[in-house]
Amino acid sequence: MLSQQDLPPSSKLYHNSLALFCDLYQLTMACGYWKKRIDQTKAVFYFTYRKWPFQGGFGIFAGLGSFLEFFQEFRFLEEDLAYLASLESPGKTPLFPRGFLEYLANLRLTLSIDGMEEGSLVFPYEPLLRVEGPLLQAQILETALLNIFNFQTLIASKAARVKWAASSDEVVEFGMRRAQGIDGAISASRAAMIGGCDATSNVLAGKLFSIPVRGTMSHSWVMAFREESEAFASFVEISPKSAVFLVDTYDTIRGVENAIHIAKQRKKEGFSLFAVRLDSGDLLSLSRSIRTILDRAGFSDTKIMASNELDEFMIEDLKRKGAKISIWGVGTSLVTGKDQPAFDGVYKLSACQNEAGEWVDKMKLSDDPMKRTLPGILQVARYFDGQTYQCDEIYDKRVLHAEDSWIHHPTQGTRKRLSSTWEKIDLFVPLVDRGVVVYPSCSISTIKKRVAKELSRLPERTKALKQPDPYFVGISSPLFEKRNRLVEEVLL
Amino acid sequence: MLSQQDLPPSSKLYHNSLALFCDLYQLTMACGYWKKRIDQTKAVFYFTYRKWPFQGGFGIFAGLGSFLEFFQEFRFLEEDLAYLASLESPGKTPLFPRGFLEYLANLRLTLSIDGMEEGSLVFPYEPLLRVEGPLLQAQILETALLNIFNFQTLIASKAARVKWAASSDEVVEFGMRRAQGIDGAISASRAAMIGGCDATSNVLAGKLFSIPVRGTMSHSWVMAFREESEAFASFVEISPKSAVFLVDTYDTIRGVENAIHIAKQRKKEGFSLFAVRLDSGDLLSLSRSIRTILDRAGFSDTKIMASNELDEFMIEDLKRKGAKISIWGVGTSLVTGKDQPAFDGVYKLSACQNEAGEWVDKMKLSDDPMKRTLPGILQVARYFDGQTYQCDEIYDKRVLHAEDSWIHHPTQGTRKRLSSTWEKIDLFVPLVDRGVVVYPSCSISTIKKRVAKELSRLPERTKALKQPDPYFVGISSPLFEKRNRLVEEVLL
Repeated sequence: MLSQQDLPPSSKLYHNSLALFCDLYQLTMACGYWKKRIDQTKAVFYFTYRKWPFQGGFGIFAGLGSFLEFFQEFRFLEEDLAYLASLESPGKTPLFPRGFLEYLANLRLTLSIDGMEEGSLVFPYEPLLRVEGPLLQAQILETALLNIFNFQTLIASKAARVKWAASSDEVVEFGMRRAQGIDGAISASRAAMIGGCDATSNVLAGKLFSIPVRGTMSHSWVMAFREESEAFASFVEISPKSAVFLVDTYDTIRGVENAIHIAKQRKKEGFSLFAVRLDSGDLLSLSRSIRTILDRAGFSDTKIMASNELDEFMIEDLKRKGAKISIWGVGTSLVTGKDQPAFDGVYKLSACQNEAGEWVDKMKLSDDPMKRTLPGILQVARYFDGQTYQCDEIYDKRVLHAEDSWIHHPTQGTRKRLSSTWEKIDLFVPLVDRGVVVYPSCSISTIKKRVAKELSRLPERTKALKQPDPYFVGISSPLFEKRNRLVEEVLL
Repeated sequence: MLSQQDLPPSSKLYHNSLALFCDLYQLTMACGYWKKRIDQTKAVFYFTYRKWPFQGGFGIFAGLGSFLEFFQEFRFLEEDLAYLASLESPGKTPLFPRGFLEYLANLRLTLSIDGMEEGSLVFPYEPLLRVEGPLLQAQILETALLNIFNFQTLIASKAARVKWAASSDEVVEFGMRRAQGIDGAISASRAAMIGGCDATSNVLAGKLFSIPVRGTMSHSWVMAFREESEAFASFVEISPKSAVFLVDTYDTIRGVENAIHIAKQRKKEGFSLFAVRLDSGDLLSLSRSIRTILDRAGFSDTKIMASNELDEFMIEDLKRKGAKISIWGVGTSLVTGKDQPAFDGVYKLSACQNEAGEWVDKMKLSDDPMKRTLPGILQVARYFDGQTYQCDEIYDKRVLHAEDSWIHHPTQGTRKRLSSTWEKIDLFVPLVDRGVVVYPSCSISTIKKRVAKELSRLPERTKALKQPDPYFVGISSPLFEKRNRLVEEVLL
């Protein structure tokens, strides 16, 4: 299969820069920063989230490759500026002054971005990325950054759960027909592979990301022939070595018998029935009956594949009850994150330079303590005892650790002592240096391996689908004290 | 504002044809049809769905404009074929023979498509579109067709519910940061406008579809200045006539006082405070307090805008309880269809020509009667008494109506007599004629007007958010009898 690097340069999804892919207020505010001449004021933003996805114990960070591509292409084109020039403010005057549009025309991003590698384990409250540089630039990236990371992180996290439920069984993603739009399907296929799926049905995603594609047959194939057997026999002509037959178009058990009949006929020509696929009915009892029928007919190597509104809970349940299924086709629930279709990532200002060039810490208060942001120039370390990850620590990169190495839960008042025997792994790596992408592009299979390694370092109880053991994410003592001091200053 | 026609031709989202945007099995089956020389066999498919979206009483059909664009661009490019040539079957031989790839290279669609106009009211079980033509072509369109219509119909239906709850209030869609990928945001903005939203924050959607864009300011704008008042005053410089101030960054009531203070200062320069925006807290009590403060300060024209995880139920509830909000910002719940993030549309074969060129009816059985498909060449009529729509009738376009004009519920055994005083409106119009798009492209505002008109013809009780009165969709007597006969033939 071609790798991504080998593909011709025209192999990209979007026609051109997605610079206009933002909420209008990003541009209005940018115009304000430009007018107030604070567009070049240095600012620091960070990307974080608040809720455990799917009430599970972890998330899988995904979307970095797509975001860096967006970043590299970022430019306002003439047609974008012509559109912006056509917009009017309530007073029927142009919304954006000409000078500002010229500014956008010449704008080249000079931001620096540090953050976690794609495929990292992530937990609520901690920063996943940090964006530093001119206030205006950091602001106008917000919407696209959130859109890309929120969705792919959601789906990679879901896929990791589905794969965990399926254990060593194969999981094939085929949700594109009910995904949320073209990119809802393409990005979902990318993220699902990262999170743990073994293949996708999505051909365009296969081409764009060099990921394995897989397919069987549809009910309409079976219906297009006079008889089910004829449909199966015809399929052997296009797939002479091995195939998966869909057996539930008319009567499932009769479908299996027809599949066996055709497979026997074609055996001497080298054909083997790789699997039969069920797409309806009671998967538990059907898979057992079918297993018996296949085994008796000498087809004990033939697998049973199942699909039909599956999710991680149903797979776990079917496996626990002894379903004879070893390939799972997962669609809608996976690619839409059905039980929680949005990841609640946010992008927050945490520091700004004043006129004297000194950093001023920034934080947003809220009645909900989990919605309070953190001030400073943030970074995250993860502690590893050689077997499993022990906890994460959010700290300000300018502040040395206090001797007393406690980390504090952001809201619950609990704390945890760091052990000197734990390896400290700084999770942030340089991604973009003053406008230049410095992080090497990773293949999906590389990212996938990272996910597998990371998950192997997470306690099993933290991976459970329901009521997982929570992973401890804390704030370093100096940062914790600074935060509390700032809260008091504002509230008093 | 520029209309879509005025925009330069480069103003398109995708780099090129999305022909590879399909499930792999569509291409495998296409290869089979080609090999069996039945690629040119005439077939009829239809697009339908089964579940009332959001447990409501109606759906809004959307996505047609996007689908016809996809259709017109459909072509396998050299890079697509190079990718397909690289794919291998289990036996390590090429998955697709060279001859088939050449066939795809020369493939130009010659299908005919009839269906409902974009913005039509739709109901479960009835066909929304009918695709006729060569089996192979009708098959390979399936995935993209489902993806586009499923998602946009879902969101347009959701938006109509949100707008219904908001009544004459304004609804602004700003979900893009948590939408499902780039197109999850762009298509959602398009569909949300069709369904009833008044504007979007999505600038790229504004450009692509000529829809109104709107924006306020973010918390980071407020935080980028030393004082909230300074942030508001600075905003007046970019929006000197009118603005919406976000008042909840620090303390909401103090925020409103600051907003009033700045608005009074700038009044003589012609500035008016259009609205204040709340993005957190108890919207009911806050909006009441703020209303009082604004009124006492002489700002009774200033509106209150609210956002924060809103959906149709919360809006209805807040309005019923007397919240003083008249602009609603709706994001995540709207653009992801949060409580039902996928529309269950399916695409089914309903007839196929045999070697003699005669039509053979096709249907798929299922234990679930609602999952049984309908045979024939299907069409839908809607009956109108001059005030409200009375019922829809699914019929075979080749079969004249029986004198006895009953229509039958597909599964419940109930039936309804058609009245000779009702106007019969055939809902299908020609969209594509032998490969050529014949349906004129409609602006979003035209489609939006159609939605408003259609909804005005639906009984209020059918539009209720919860437990709506069901709308009657039935099958014509001749089709009903044919269906039952076919079921018996298969089951006996």
